[in-house]
Amino acid sequence: MKNLDSMGLKFRDGKLTILDQQKLPHEEIWLESHTPDDMIGFIKALKVRGAPLIGVAAALALANWARAEFGSKAFLRDDNESSSNQRTKFLLAAQNLRESRPTAVNLMAAIDRLLDTAEKSDFSTDKILSKAIEIFDEDVKLCEEMASEGAKYVEDGNNILTHCNSGGLATVGRGTALGVITKAAETKKIHVWVDETRPLLQGARLTAWELGKLKIPHTLICDNMAATLMAQGKVDKIFVGADRIARNGDFANKIGTYSLAVLAKHHGIPFYVVAPKTTVDLNCSSGTQIPVEEREASEVRGMSGPKESLVFNPAFDVTPSSLVSAYVPRNLPIN
Amino acid sequence: MKNLDSMGLKFRDGKLTILDQQKLPHEEIWLESHTPDDMIGFIKALKVRGAPLIGVAAALALANWARAEFGSKAFLRDDNESSSNQRTKFLLAAQNLRESRPTAVNLMAAIDRLLDTAEKSDFSTDKILSKAIEIFDEDVKLCEEMASEGAKYVEDGNNILTHCNSGGLATVGRGTALGVITKAAETKKIHVWVDETRPLLQGARLTAWELGKLKIPHTLICDNMAATLMAQGKVDKIFVGADRIARNGDFANKIGTYSLAVLAKHHGIPFYVVAPKTTVDLNCSSGTQIPVEEREASEVRGMSGPKESLVFNPAFDVTPSSLVSAYVPRNLPIN
Repeated sequence: MKNLDSMGLKFRDGKLTILDQQKLPHEEIWLESHTPDDMIGFIKALKVRGAPLIGVAAALALANWARAEFGSKAFLRDDNESSSNQRTKFLLAAQNLRESRPTAVNLMAAIDRLLDTAEKSDFSTDKILSKAIEIFDEDVKLCEEMASEGAKYVEDGNNILTHCNSGGLATVGRGTALGVITKAAETKKIHVWVDETRPLLQGARLTAWELGKLKIPHTLICDNMAATLMAQGKVDKIFVGADRIARNGDFANKIGTYSLAVLAKHHGIPFYVVAPKTTVDLNCSSGTQIPVEEREASEVRGMSGPKESLVFNPAFDVTPSSLVSAYVPRNLPIN
Repeated sequence: MKNLDSMGLKFRDGKLTILDQQKLPHEEIWLESHTPDDMIGFIKALKVRGAPLIGVAAALALANWARAEFGSKAFLRDDNESSSNQRTKFLLAAQNLRESRPTAVNLMAAIDRLLDTAEKSDFSTDKILSKAIEIFDEDVKLCEEMASEGAKYVEDGNNILTHCNSGGLATVGRGTALGVITKAAETKKIHVWVDETRPLLQGARLTAWELGKLKIPHTLICDNMAATLMAQGKVDKIFVGADRIARNGDFANKIGTYSLAVLAKHHGIPFYVVAPKTTVDLNCSSGTQIPVEEREASEVRGMSGPKESLVFNPAFDVTPSSLVSAYVPRNLPIN
């Protein structure tokens, strides 16, 4: 069986492991996923995060578990009780994985593609696993294509601002928005402003870590400092990823993205969205239809806020397409 | 001697104590200030913060120390070596206090008023202390006046957003922006969105604590969530304080304020600045002349960011007057 390797996920000799992104940057701990429930736990706790990575990780977790559980050559045909039970178990696991995070559409798309393969192959676990591996390979390829296309927008000497983490830790390739930035840095002299990205600090913990590993000059800021940098002319371009894009180009991304888009418009700064076609949800006609996950109060309150205070903690916000200068790739199925 | 009492500062029987605001909301620890250096340490460590409070605390620290050090009736006339030494010591202490935080103008104004009184009274420590007490009383009165005037902008049912802490902990009265909000809450049903205010979380730690004590409904958010609330029509008005206001109305306030002002304009939300006349710096013609303090990288990096990453940490930003709907009070000396 083919081995797969990325910054945050490895699949070797039938063993699926993920890098615990909650422990970064200070500890690099790899966790094994045996069952769909393992992966659901990792996704909910944000040990695995980043819309494209979640999709690939969930697909591999489901496929690899099914093959181990039902046999490498098992055909789960619906012609006896045992197969029927296996089929029910598989579909339930798929459904639970599919619902483990409500905003990222890549997760739903990846699971749906496995279910489609399952239907068409009479539930061949080998074919389901092959499809999961195909989804992995496809993500790597999409990242490379986006990086090459997006890097053309970056000029020598640019100061680029990014939010959250959309790099090698958010995908199984080089990333989306951060993939563009690291690609550009291979041939151009650039500097990156890294939004820390409250409440879970994916910018401070993950993006700064990735840029540090690649020795790309960068400076960490609190999210509320971006506007003052823009006013001072110190931000030339903004690149962000997306968790779901509606048919009209409205898109959901990590909370704080919409704020940046409005600020970019006010200051006349180009604002780019980088996301693979798997991020487009053709069932959503506009951003108002994208469900936004609300998470635990404790993420915001932390050690500091009084326990009595209410907390509002949306994980994402929705940015209208009118605030987007360009999408990468240009041929996304939006209008 | 008169005793003085506020939420964050007490002056009783010649003893000056301040509430350690870095320990709030979980511990309420009062610290004694004996010397100007004590107070300088408290100010630099943000144990005492809030532009008006800093001014009053510094004035009282200087005056009270001088009286204890040189005698309650001492006249530091420049006619012998001992008096000359005392005078030099006093002026040096005043200068060091004056420079302990570079952005807040109230601090400079308060110290300058004590120096003026000193000059005019041949350095009478009694008269200097009386002036410091007068500055305290004046701040209480100014807060009440601003609160009454500003509360007229608030309507029943309003959702009000505020940033940082501008309440009873930032002044020796009921506060500036938060004073307006708590005054309005006495007669109107309102709800307050509290920006946590990175990096030092004055919103989460101090404003939420004050509102909790007053039982005013409020919800804590991360700074980057304000925009999405505005887009959803959930913010009716924004009230913020100021650390320094230039003659043309441009003003410096806690980092993140400028971002809110731009977002408010985009969403058509009224944006109010509440600050006493002591916050206006007549020597600054516009915001470009206001120095912005940059603080330690560790405040931003915290436990999360890689130690290798650079950090940008301005404590304040400057908002142009064009983004301000109204100033409270209306008769600030600006044009």
